[in-house]
Amino acid sequence: MNDAVIGTPAVRVREVGLRDGLQMVGTILTTGQKLEWCRRMVDAGVREIEVTSFVPPKIVPQFADAVDVARGALAIDGLHAAALVPNLKGAQRAFDVGVAQVHYVLSASDAHNLKNVRRSTAESVADFGRIVAERDERAKPVVLGAGVATAFGCTISGKVEERIVLGLVETLIEAGADEITVADTVGYANPGQVRALMRKVCALAGAVPVACHFHDTRGLGLANVFAALDAGVRAFDSSLGGLGGCPFAPNATGNINTEDTVFLLEAEGLRTGIDLDKLLAMRATLAEWLPGEPFSGAIARAGVPKTFGERVAA
Amino acid sequence: MNDAVIGTPAVRVREVGLRDGLQMVGTILTTGQKLEWCRRMVDAGVREIEVTSFVPPKIVPQFADAVDVARGALAIDGLHAAALVPNLKGAQRAFDVGVAQVHYVLSASDAHNLKNVRRSTAESVADFGRIVAERDERAKPVVLGAGVATAFGCTISGKVEERIVLGLVETLIEAGADEITVADTVGYANPGQVRALMRKVCALAGAVPVACHFHDTRGLGLANVFAALDAGVRAFDSSLGGLGGCPFAPNATGNINTEDTVFLLEAEGLRTGIDLDKLLAMRATLAEWLPGEPFSGAIARAGVPKTFGERVAA
Repeated sequence: MNDAVIGTPAVRVREVGLRDGLQMVGTILTTGQKLEWCRRMVDAGVREIEVTSFVPPKIVPQFADAVDVARGALAIDGLHAAALVPNLKGAQRAFDVGVAQVHYVLSASDAHNLKNVRRSTAESVADFGRIVAERDERAKPVVLGAGVATAFGCTISGKVEERIVLGLVETLIEAGADEITVADTVGYANPGQVRALMRKVCALAGAVPVACHFHDTRGLGLANVFAALDAGVRAFDSSLGGLGGCPFAPNATGNINTEDTVFLLEAEGLRTGIDLDKLLAMRATLAEWLPGEPFSGAIARAGVPKTFGERVAA
Repeated sequence: MNDAVIGTPAVRVREVGLRDGLQMVGTILTTGQKLEWCRRMVDAGVREIEVTSFVPPKIVPQFADAVDVARGALAIDGLHAAALVPNLKGAQRAFDVGVAQVHYVLSASDAHNLKNVRRSTAESVADFGRIVAERDERAKPVVLGAGVATAFGCTISGKVEERIVLGLVETLIEAGADEITVADTVGYANPGQVRALMRKVCALAGAVPVACHFHDTRGLGLANVFAALDAGVRAFDSSLGGLGGCPFAPNATGNINTEDTVFLLEAEGLRTGIDLDKLLAMRATLAEWLPGEPFSGAIARAGVPKTFGERVAA
């Protein structure tokens, strides 16, 4: 595994707790808390954070302050603030605020896409084309990422064929996606499946960066990260304390945990640039802010091995 | 991954909850409960169970009924009952009862070995030679497995060199071990390390079967199983409900969970011959027997994916 460029992490860990995590919790954090979370993650070495979602505030009250969070995050030095957008309208709001990294997600499963954004996958693909056009009309450059949700199976429709996912990846790249994220939205993936599919996605994507988004619903989240590393993936979404899930996927609680993911990656000899102790301190603050919410994570409980520093230094 | 022989599982899951699990819990199960656990695991399709440990009863009161449990287990149809022995005296007791599968464990870390059995690793190697001699003197054939504990690092002495582990594997096979188990006793292993070491162990072991024994202390237990599969390992120790640990390894709680391990293996297309529903039913009984003990496991919480049966059938 190469890590030739000094100063550039060998692998990117993208915090999604402020988006995927917070959309599931009962407590609405203040804008100030969200921005403190961002600042402390940046201080810990996290460079990429999905800071909010431009969904209609009526649907997810947690994101009613999307504009303020995005503005505040854009002012944080060293942070590449990203925002999720569910449709053209959300993208327009994100562009208006000046968000430089916008993530659009559609679902490989038509049934899940209908539940999630009330339209077919094909309609969402067409919508992405309109978002690209809108982006291109504006002067300011925006990195536009496209995600394929339920890429490893769907709680509603079951099996999702590889060819569906690969077809969507190809279509989204042709339409202008600057980055592809392949998501196991409901925690159905197993590592053999991940390695097989992600090898094909990476080959198809060529120079377009590929990320994975895993949930730890069935205990295989970190095994799936390891399998994706084998396939060449070098960017992962994760959530501090393992917050997260999907409101339309039963028991899909839990993005993979940021602390544990960083531990795995560093143990594998891949530099993340992230300070685990600072992550754990922020996790403790978050636990105070969100009483009663389930937090996952082995490193927070057991600590790192005595040999961890040696491995990283070696 | 081949699974050519009808009727033979492609991968062996060895239950160690009755030994590694029970040595950590506060409640002492009755002999009757232990044997019910065995019978129900066999009914679920588990063929190999480490049913007890022939340690001195004063040290681990849980195993004061080792002889009775072993006798009862030997009478269960379809069960290959194994017992752990820490030394020659324990082996003699196991041989006397007629246990046909005996597991001896020593630690790659001298410091851990001293804590665990109060002698150096070299002394434990010599003891294994005496156990083999004792076995060979008796008429009844006994499969003698040898395990290398702390093979991926030690909470006391830190890093454990690969050459130490490989040297011990070679020595134990030369001394007469019929099977080798490589154990991450304290949950220090990461999957890249597992794949690298286990490839070498498998190459060295040749026709001698190789098993892995992982703990999920730092969340990487199932990732390590996946990595060991890559290396060719086809036998894994696990504990129902994730019970277990090591009294001398702080926070080393938790063998990998049997239910989750079976789920991973079956999802990977490797037949275990084990019925997950029956495992979960026994887990529920065990939770009643051991109130207040920590149980781990994602499948018990989230269930299997809708696609799980399809994958197994495919």
